[in-house]
Amino acid sequence: MHQLCVDLFPITRSITGAGARETLARVSADLPLAIHEVPSGTPAFDWTVPAEWNVRDAFVADDHGHRIVDFNRSNLHLVSYSIPVHERLTLDELRPHLFSLPDRPDLIPYRTSYYEKSWGFCLTHDDLVGLPDGTYEVCIDSTLEPGSLTYGEVVIPGSSDDEVLLSTHICHPSLANDNLSGIALLTFLGRLLGARPHHFSYRLLFIPGTIGSIVWLSRNEEILGRIRHGLVVTGIGDAAPFTYKKSRRGDADIDRAVQHVLRTTHDDARVVDFSPYGYDERQFCSPGFNLPVGRLGRSVHGEYPEYHTSGDNLDFLVPEQLAGALETMVDIVNVIEGNGTFVNQNPKCEPQLGRRGLYRALGGAFDSKSTEMAMLWVLNYSDGTHDLLDIASRAELPFDAVKRAADLLGDHGLLAPARVPRLEVAP
Amino acid sequence: MHQLCVDLFPITRSITGAGARETLARVSADLPLAIHEVPSGTPAFDWTVPAEWNVRDAFVADDHGHRIVDFNRSNLHLVSYSIPVHERLTLDELRPHLFSLPDRPDLIPYRTSYYEKSWGFCLTHDDLVGLPDGTYEVCIDSTLEPGSLTYGEVVIPGSSDDEVLLSTHICHPSLANDNLSGIALLTFLGRLLGARPHHFSYRLLFIPGTIGSIVWLSRNEEILGRIRHGLVVTGIGDAAPFTYKKSRRGDADIDRAVQHVLRTTHDDARVVDFSPYGYDERQFCSPGFNLPVGRLGRSVHGEYPEYHTSGDNLDFLVPEQLAGALETMVDIVNVIEGNGTFVNQNPKCEPQLGRRGLYRALGGAFDSKSTEMAMLWVLNYSDGTHDLLDIASRAELPFDAVKRAADLLGDHGLLAPARVPRLEVAP
Amino acid sequence: MHQLCVDLFPITRSITGAGARETLARVSADLPLAIHEVPSGTPAFDWTVPAEWNVRDAFVADDHGHRIVDFNRSNLHLVSYSIPVHERLTLDELRPHLFSLPDRPDLIPYRTSYYEKSWGFCLTHDDLVGLPDGTYEVCIDSTLEPGSLTYGEVVIPGSSDDEVLLSTHICHPSLANDNLSGIALLTFLGRLLGARPHHFSYRLLFIPGTIGSIVWLSRNEEILGRIRHGLVVTGIGDAAPFTYKKSRRGDADIDRAVQHVLRTTHDDARVVDFSPYGYDERQFCSPGFNLPVGRLGRSVHGEYPEYHTSGDNLDFLVPEQLAGALETMVDIVNVIEGNGTFVNQNPKCEPQLGRRGLYRALGGAFDSKSTEMAMLWVLNYSDGTHDLLDIASRAELPFDAVKRAADLLGDHGLLAPARVPRLEVAP
Repeated sequence: MHQLCVDLFPITRSITGAGARETLARVSADLPLAIHEVPSGTPAFDWTVPAEWNVRDAFVADDHGHRIVDFNRSNLHLVSYSIPVHERLTLDELRPHLFSLPDRPDLIPYRTSYYEKSWGFCLTHDDLVGLPDGTYEVCIDSTLEPGSLTYGEVVIPGSSDDEVLLSTHICHPSLANDNLSGIALLTFLGRLLGARPHHFSYRLLFIPGTIGSIVWLSRNEEILGRIRHGLVVTGIGDAAPFTYKKSRRGDADIDRAVQHVLRTTHDDARVVDFSPYGYDERQFCSPGFNLPVGRLGRSVHGEYPEYHTSGDNLDFLVPEQLAGALETMVDIVNVIEGNGTFVNQNPKCEPQLGRRGLYRALGGAFDSKSTEMAMLWVLNYSDGTHDLLDIASRAELPFDAVKRAADLLGDHGLLAPARVPRLEVAP
Repeated sequence: MHQLCVDLFPITRSITGAGARETLARVSADLPLAIHEVPSGTPAFDWTVPAEWNVRDAFVADDHGHRIVDFNRSNLHLVSYSIPVHERLTLDELRPHLFSLPDRPDLIPYRTSYYEKSWGFCLTHDDLVGLPDGTYEVCIDSTLEPGSLTYGEVVIPGSSDDEVLLSTHICHPSLANDNLSGIALLTFLGRLLGARPHHFSYRLLFIPGTIGSIVWLSRNEEILGRIRHGLVVTGIGDAAPFTYKKSRRGDADIDRAVQHVLRTTHDDARVVDFSPYGYDERQFCSPGFNLPVGRLGRSVHGEYPEYHTSGDNLDFLVPEQLAGALETMVDIVNVIEGNGTFVNQNPKCEPQLGRRGLYRALGGAFDSKSTEMAMLWVLNYSDGTHDLLDIASRAELPFDAVKRAADLLGDHGLLAPARVPRLEVAP
Repeated sequence: MHQLCVDLFPITRSITGAGARETLARVSADLPLAIHEVPSGTPAFDWTVPAEWNVRDAFVADDHGHRIVDFNRSNLHLVSYSIPVHERLTLDELRPHLFSLPDRPDLIPYRTSYYEKSWGFCLTHDDLVGLPDGTYEVCIDSTLEPGSLTYGEVVIPGSSDDEVLLSTHICHPSLANDNLSGIALLTFLGRLLGARPHHFSYRLLFIPGTIGSIVWLSRNEEILGRIRHGLVVTGIGDAAPFTYKKSRRGDADIDRAVQHVLRTTHDDARVVDFSPYGYDERQFCSPGFNLPVGRLGRSVHGEYPEYHTSGDNLDFLVPEQLAGALETMVDIVNVIEGNGTFVNQNPKCEPQLGRRGLYRALGGAFDSKSTEMAMLWVLNYSDGTHDLLDIASRAELPFDAVKRAADLLGDHGLLAPARVPRLEVAP
């Protein structure tokens, strides 16, 4: 996963353009992505696909032709979606186009101007305050022309048409945690899912932020009813503990599943309520859709000093944290795959587990975390209204222990799936 | 407001009599009160309007004719509703008629005997223990005769017949916080309401405690269905932080509104659950009415040493606290006036605020308290089930920021009022 | 109660056999128990009544014929339900049949093997490690033959057929807290109940653990619909504070009643959620019955070092704690007997309590715990939806104060019982 981040880091990504295509091509080496191109001007709800932006070169040079700000040294130097410009300006004329971070003077900020025609450069505050008076040559060799918006999508089919939606954004240039960590996570999770059987079909989206999810939603309304669970994953590779942001519903199965996994494996994880700001959960959870989509990450956007600066580089990623994120995603998948609601077939008193070889023979000490205990919990609460995830939470047992107990009870005819009427959507 | 308290302080108020009339006459100089006179003997549910009580003079004099307790020095000296008496008594005969506070020996207590024919004097404990043996002349020149109960009422009409009920009691003699502060607050709030347009009609009651609200309720049952919100206000001028006592419903809109205002403006405010003891909320919230009426005050009756003693005098009032109470009442009015439930007209994904000039152009840092953020909250939760007050609480934003955002979105056609079916009361 | 424990302590009880009969005979001296004998082989849901076990003698003797483990010194030495055996074994052959507690080396553990044919001895770890090599004579003079399972039952009739189920287990040999304390508590509570009138009929069960409750349930399904409240009581005589384990329903009346009593009388009491492990509440609360049965005890099984060892002896019992448990049970009975839902007959404003002599005459200080206050709470919340227990909890008043207030109000015609439709069980 870290190597994939290393490979992708130098590419100049934005919400459209060659960088997005190059990124998706590299991902396709590991995962069979379908690449979609949506022409500029295509309407998507209240929005329109913007012109495609590409950039060949950009710099600010001093009187001596010395490039004091150079896009080739860091693509963060250029405000994303800057229009072409080539002129000579005094420092005073240039200043409104220069952006820095006075409180983090050694970092280059990341800025965009997608929907307002504009241009600008970002540089460290140390460099900004060191600029001598004089005239400067400003050159942005960019194009902003009709083209298309590019996104990648893959469905890894399961035995059911019911879907799990997993989404990450691909529109940031040389920023590592935000968003290469999410791209790497979904790529490797996709490979794992392709190699094992599963119930749900998993739909993985690699899309530009905001406009990408809006465009995807506008083209896929008919499949939204099949989405049972969903996660936006991003910012998952830094040293911090996990943060889970609940779906707008607040008590969707995905919310319960992620919270259960984090509670049983990561004491330091944080869970926050839904808010209408952040990443693409904003769109998936807009009131017209209200999909059961939460967001999993580590440090939260805007809350760490490296966020949207040159400090979010490859050194900011921790390979073990990327691996840990993958492990946690697999745990979450295991819960949503394994969950179900059952009915105890012997509901009057406990069944005699002992004569079925399911209970220790000698009365005495009893481990509260044992399989016998898990079986007692499953039997007692399997009345058709409590799913295994609920039982695991009540019992304070890991989901897999409860799942194993349910399987064992099922094998002995003591448990049967609840007949849950499938909700039909009115025409 | 403080001057009004100063003017009203010397008057000998009780649940009936000349003092109530004089008080209402003074308030009428500022607010066009209707004065109601309800004859003694009028039934009101389980009660009957009592005889009217007036007093000209009252004293206890020693052997030398020296007035050692004198109603003219403080009307608290006389137990309210004392029957006429004029006799000579030994100290031992007098003692059962004398009331003091051994644990606050320098304060005169306030005592009443409305419904048991009786008489008595209140004095400081220091004075009581200093009384020499001997005979005393006791004189109470009072009348307790058929008359009427007096209360004041004003309706400040709004664009709707729906009403907000605001009530304060007017039955205490020379006590400042309890109840002159409430009288001053309602008087000045009434003046402000008269000077601005509003949706609700505001009904302000200046009534004697308990019997006054019972009488008013018995004469106004037919309008109770129009009361949407209500507050009893009293004890609002001392130095302590606010205390809000919830309505019996516990989750009425008025409860949510007051709690929101206090939470966002007064960290030190206290909120307590409804209890069936206190001021006239006892009657408004009796189970046969269960009106959405809470109570706003500062120090709570019985919980401060000056309560119902001569310590609750004009020095106990803090003019800034009176002003602050008025300000908070205006904040509460603004919330109940401005609240509403809306429907996002562009519910699928976010609308593109930027092309409407509603969003900052340059991507980057984002203030969680900004207008943009308030708009995102309003858009996301305006699905016809969340009112603005709920949204403000979820967003941890001041109500006015959310209201401004809603107005702005409405102006741009992005928000429309939810059609809320009006509840009809069955005949 | 302590004397009863002393009398019962030496008896060798198990889930069947002479010890159970002897125990119930001793209890019958105090309480008119019906003794039920259920033949071995009788089916009970998924279980079958086992063979009856009795034991005359059991020992392990060394080469010199010296009894180094002797059932006559402590019946805990023999694993309960050990099959007959008489042979000579080397220490290595004997060792798998010997059980000790390495971490509590001076205590004899208590072990059973009800449903796996087996034999064994329990001894202190100190004794075990001191055994020299050599051959040992092992003798268990027991019988495991068709017979019956024995339990005791008494119904103390009330004015209603609705029942309160109180159950304790009787299957442990010389262990004092677990289970003699429960036997003593139910015996003496039964005597008290027999001596006073009550509404509910109280059904007291003295049954072997697990198989006893399963057998009882299988023979009494038709009466389960009459059980309104229930408690399993056991482990109630040690020095620790109370622990209440809620019924599976979690909010049954019995849960509210016990929590109210403990909250108002025992600050140190602990309340835990239902779990499907423990004593016979496992069976009463199995999903096919889901009876409103909680469990009251002090130290919880498995959580104290003396549990299921020779340390749980008569010295471990505290007579004052036995008496306190009885007192608390009486408090609980008083709540469930006295609880009810009423309707204020004067719901519009407060009734005038004063003219009925129910209110202090002189206005002034007011005790929040007074009878007047309790009456105000009862009047305000008696709208047919709040029972007295709920009102007591809201008011933070002891139940008996609220009950007294309700009785007083009823006597004055101010309160009438709510007509609560009796729930019918569908055929």
